[in-house]
Amino acid sequence: MEPISIKNISTKAPDGWDKEATKLKTKDILAELNELQNLLYAENKHSVLVIFQGMDASGKDGVVRDVFTSMNPTGIRVYSFKVPTEEELSHDFLWRVHKVTPPRGMIHVFNRSHYEDILVTRVHGMIDDATAQKRIKAINDFEQLLTEHANTTILKFYLHISQEEQHEQLVERLKEPSKMWKYNSKDFDESAQWDTYMKYYEEAFNSCNNIPWHIIPADQNWYKSYLVATILRDTLKGLNMKYPGIKKG
Amino acid sequence: MEPISIKNISTKAPDGWDKEATKLKTKDILAELNELQNLLYAENKHSVLVIFQGMDASGKDGVVRDVFTSMNPTGIRVYSFKVPTEEELSHDFLWRVHKVTPPRGMIHVFNRSHYEDILVTRVHGMIDDATAQKRIKAINDFEQLLTEHANTTILKFYLHISQEEQHEQLVERLKEPSKMWKYNSKDFDESAQWDTYMKYYEEAFNSCNNIPWHIIPADQNWYKSYLVATILRDTLKGLNMKYPGIKKG
Repeated sequence: MEPISIKNISTKAPDGWDKEATKLKTKDILAELNELQNLLYAENKHSVLVIFQGMDASGKDGVVRDVFTSMNPTGIRVYSFKVPTEEELSHDFLWRVHKVTPPRGMIHVFNRSHYEDILVTRVHGMIDDATAQKRIKAINDFEQLLTEHANTTILKFYLHISQEEQHEQLVERLKEPSKMWKYNSKDFDESAQWDTYMKYYEEAFNSCNNIPWHIIPADQNWYKSYLVATILRDTLKGLNMKYPGIKKG
Repeated sequence: MEPISIKNISTKAPDGWDKEATKLKTKDILAELNELQNLLYAENKHSVLVIFQGMDASGKDGVVRDVFTSMNPTGIRVYSFKVPTEEELSHDFLWRVHKVTPPRGMIHVFNRSHYEDILVTRVHGMIDDATAQKRIKAINDFEQLLTEHANTTILKFYLHISQEEQHEQLVERLKEPSKMWKYNSKDFDESAQWDTYMKYYEEAFNSCNNIPWHIIPADQNWYKSYLVATILRDTLKGLNMKYPGIKKG
């Protein structure tokens, strides 16, 4: 596999891409997803873990809302990982995520994930490089465990925005009353570390790639949601699921 | 409060009730719910626990799908309570539900609940009456704890179907391939205990009524979903929520 070089990937839809046609297509895909999720739940054989990573204001919350609101919440759980609690820190870094991996029939969505443990922690010098390398190996082993032993399909998305778009979004949070609650005074300090984040993100993509990353151009919400919904739809279709018959006993 | 007598409550919409107009109204209410849930999450002050009880095939899964699919799954968690596990049984009966009560900002939906511990358990003679009475007191105390100490608003719905409608639905499960997975060979045995269930349900409604029960005529899906959505919308509106400003610090 060609290594991922983040700077060479556009953060936007290709020039001339039809926005309105794409929005209509997305609507159809969401209807398909609703059916497919019902089937996944009924068949109770596979599980799906969808991981979203991305810089602040890259639209992780928004894509979860846009893509997963169409599905029956009985079969969906969204987990947002924040700064670890004292209890979480007293275990290994995978403990808190392993607790909430999806059982059969379910789709679990991670809004941030165990990848923060080799991202924000490295940017802030909280772990040294040797520890990071050990964590990378542990992450690969963990994802293999879920894939091989829990019949879990893992989808990893990086929401790829430009720093300019991020700044616009952060400024929006300061101005728009319905978004103020999302603003954190440290957001701009974090943004100042952009290049360091990109370096470690790139390393994550290229060293944790047994399950490949999807780099999603994310400056435009409509394009981002369309891509994520399409990949999820194709993945679910690929499971070749069917409704089970009547249970015995 | 007038005691609830289940036999005197219709399982259907009033005669002449306009089905198509109701469906349109429900659509509008779902759009309102989407907004209100976003506000609940943003304000992060209240939490909501929605409990659904009802006989097999009364449409608990369906109403969860119809009413809650419109909301961002980041702020919704649905918990279906099945036969307790060995670990759950080695604790008090409220342990497994208390673990998953909603934190601030969240709506949790219970598909069946701690009420099963004074319903199915009594129908099958698994607990005696003295134990049932103690459990009723414990349930009242528990619901008061959540209301007073966790700022949780509790909504309790009983999906009220006729035994005839239940039989139609169960037969449908035997015939329709996409529903067969829901069929359980014990469903008809349980149905044969209808009157005993009703007796214990009625006692639950009348002895656990500090937080009142909503008895929802449930033979028609469109009417049931409309009523549940309306009550939820009015409840959320009544919280007088507002978007918080920018966090300090």
